[in-house]
Amino acid sequence: MGMTMTQKILAAHAGLSEVKPGDLIMADLDLVLGNDITAPVAINVFKGINAKTVFDKDKVALVPDHFAPNKDIQAAEQCKMMRQFAGEQDITNYFEVGEMGVEHALLPEKGLVVAGDLVIGADSHTCTYGALGAFSTGVGSTDMAAGMATGKAWFKIPAAIKFNITGKMNQYVSGKDVILHIIGMIGVDGALYQSMEFVGEGIANLTIDDRFTIANMAIEAGAKNGIFIVDDQTIDYIKAHSSKEFTVYTADEDAQYERTIEINLSTIKPTVAFPHLPENTKTTDEITEPVIIDQVVIGSCTNGRLSDFAKAAKIFEGRKVAKGIRTLIIPATQKIYLQCMELGYFKTFVEAGATVSAPTCGPCLGGHMGILASGERCVATTNRNFVGRMGHVDSEVYLANPEVAAASAILGRIADPSELPKL
Amino acid sequence: MGMTMTQKILAAHAGLSEVKPGDLIMADLDLVLGNDITAPVAINVFKGINAKTVFDKDKVALVPDHFAPNKDIQAAEQCKMMRQFAGEQDITNYFEVGEMGVEHALLPEKGLVVAGDLVIGADSHTCTYGALGAFSTGVGSTDMAAGMATGKAWFKIPAAIKFNITGKMNQYVSGKDVILHIIGMIGVDGALYQSMEFVGEGIANLTIDDRFTIANMAIEAGAKNGIFIVDDQTIDYIKAHSSKEFTVYTADEDAQYERTIEINLSTIKPTVAFPHLPENTKTTDEITEPVIIDQVVIGSCTNGRLSDFAKAAKIFEGRKVAKGIRTLIIPATQKIYLQCMELGYFKTFVEAGATVSAPTCGPCLGGHMGILASGERCVATTNRNFVGRMGHVDSEVYLANPEVAAASAILGRIADPSELPKL
Repeated sequence: MGMTMTQKILAAHAGLSEVKPGDLIMADLDLVLGNDITAPVAINVFKGINAKTVFDKDKVALVPDHFAPNKDIQAAEQCKMMRQFAGEQDITNYFEVGEMGVEHALLPEKGLVVAGDLVIGADSHTCTYGALGAFSTGVGSTDMAAGMATGKAWFKIPAAIKFNITGKMNQYVSGKDVILHIIGMIGVDGALYQSMEFVGEGIANLTIDDRFTIANMAIEAGAKNGIFIVDDQTIDYIKAHSSKEFTVYTADEDAQYERTIEINLSTIKPTVAFPHLPENTKTTDEITEPVIIDQVVIGSCTNGRLSDFAKAAKIFEGRKVAKGIRTLIIPATQKIYLQCMELGYFKTFVEAGATVSAPTCGPCLGGHMGILASGERCVATTNRNFVGRMGHVDSEVYLANPEVAAASAILGRIADPSELPKL
Repeated sequence: MGMTMTQKILAAHAGLSEVKPGDLIMADLDLVLGNDITAPVAINVFKGINAKTVFDKDKVALVPDHFAPNKDIQAAEQCKMMRQFAGEQDITNYFEVGEMGVEHALLPEKGLVVAGDLVIGADSHTCTYGALGAFSTGVGSTDMAAGMATGKAWFKIPAAIKFNITGKMNQYVSGKDVILHIIGMIGVDGALYQSMEFVGEGIANLTIDDRFTIANMAIEAGAKNGIFIVDDQTIDYIKAHSSKEFTVYTADEDAQYERTIEINLSTIKPTVAFPHLPENTKTTDEITEPVIIDQVVIGSCTNGRLSDFAKAAKIFEGRKVAKGIRTLIIPATQKIYLQCMELGYFKTFVEAGATVSAPTCGPCLGGHMGILASGERCVATTNRNFVGRMGHVDSEVYLANPEVAAASAILGRIADPSELPKL
């Protein structure tokens, strides 16, 4: 029986010639990731099982990004514990404040993930790296601990959904709209424990950043992972960022899919996920009642990359944030920070009345840098809008792309960029 | 009997021709300041005493800087309360995230304080504005509430200490060293409820930023306020920032001082206040044992101005932060942020391995953006190094000027800039 991209990667890492959905396998790991929330728990488990050394000091990545720069004493202690562990174990890829960034933006940028890799991370959005043709998925801290100790993890082979991508996106539409459109269509459990396999000629029209955003939110449809075919763009990206060898896995002609979904990119409109689930989507032209907002956040592992700020800057250029709208710009890594600055985006943002933060996950998961009070509404380029995700249980988060977020900041309500007065 | 500068300002605002130390007066206020920690308390008092409207909507300043951008739900609720009050009362000088900055850097920059003003603020470092020849002092939230309601506050006229400033500072010495030197000499209660009056020909050799730093820390010697004579530099600063009328008060020839202290700027060396009091000072050449550090913070109402970052940038230029030293750059206002960016300082900092934060008080008072874990040590350009001030009770803060802080980040230990290897 033919295998999908995901199944082939898992089979190869388990030393098997064939796997089928539901099989339980033990696979070799190319990278094990933890952050300042999950790694401390994993480190305690690691020590609890009397593990002595990590399986490979080059294949563990530890990133203090969620509550760093330390937001409180507890965060400081968690980061300290991770830092000490990194020191004891001589972990190559520990990233201190000043080098660090949001993990899922940082790891590809540092060349730590390439096509064909098998990556686990104690963070649900680890699925991001599927953009590069890797299998990557979020695990709990216990699995992270076992992974650090043994270099292995067990997996149940997922069934697959094929997304056949065609066409080309219109103005103000990007990867975020594609994935919100899909989640709106199939629901937050629409791909439960399945792999979302993105194939088709339209993928050439998606930048690598679009693909990162799409793969990043595969978990929001309940998927085990999201994965893209590898094309020239992927290979260019990998070669520009990494010296690691990579393997391109292609689905067999007779690979089995639970279903095939056709996505014509040209039909997708700017899309916003209303509270309190990513599946509660409306296209901007379906929003008939004004949704007045208090805050806008542009950043996160979903949309905190250079191209996201380039798009937002183009919207903000020559315009001002509406009075009273707190607008937070949070570049995902130090490199992105530097690039945005050199390209003049930060000048545009600050002159528009936005504030630029140090790289951090920030308010996305209710950490810091823009937590919401009761009754407050935020348009965010982040990935989750669950009840209380960004602060008070009576606050609301609306997920959108960076251009919609920027337009909303300027108009003080959820807005499509096309609604902006011409300059 | 002759009066000091402070006494003259207080007398004038009380409609009295003469006051003497110990007199209780009721004076008119030119500005009442609150932040996101103190204003919510004051607003509750304001409402509790059934005050209806603030005495003058142009003479109240509300700045969310301590825990903003909101670090948690409680901070978000406090900022929301202040924002709503500002809206209800139509407060002119409410500064939202995106416009805001650290209050004591922001208010002079916005031209809200000029020579001869009488300012109270529910923040102990309100004494900063003495740099411009104003009387300004920190009060509790109750006095802030009464001040907002009535435009008046009561004061006990302080006795005075005269600081006769002569000479010129050497390289790597700035206002921070002058005030640390003074506090080291007279102690943290050395000026208890007295005014520190800075006069003398040497003041011409202190920039306005030096004077802000010195006046800012008058409270660390227990002073009611610190105040500088007004010279051409002061007038240039005021005219460049404000359209308000100002009055220059000069001490009478026969003004009475409890004591006079001679300060020859040329004798002052780079000075560090060791834990856990600002009076525990050592000059850098007195530090014989290496003090290994974990973090460096450059920012705050004390040293978060353009000239502070200019000095730090010169030290970081072409050099790198030592491995593992978290180095946080926190410009005090959006304007300073923009200026630092345009002058290339941020590029220097980020390339050196530092992280640049949005404007905020940050970790100075244990808020966010770099809180310390147990056993950690930080060199900070902030104003207080009390037990637990920046985090865990077993952490340590060393107060220094921006050049010493930068040199310490590079060498990983408290260091004088002259110790840096030549480039």
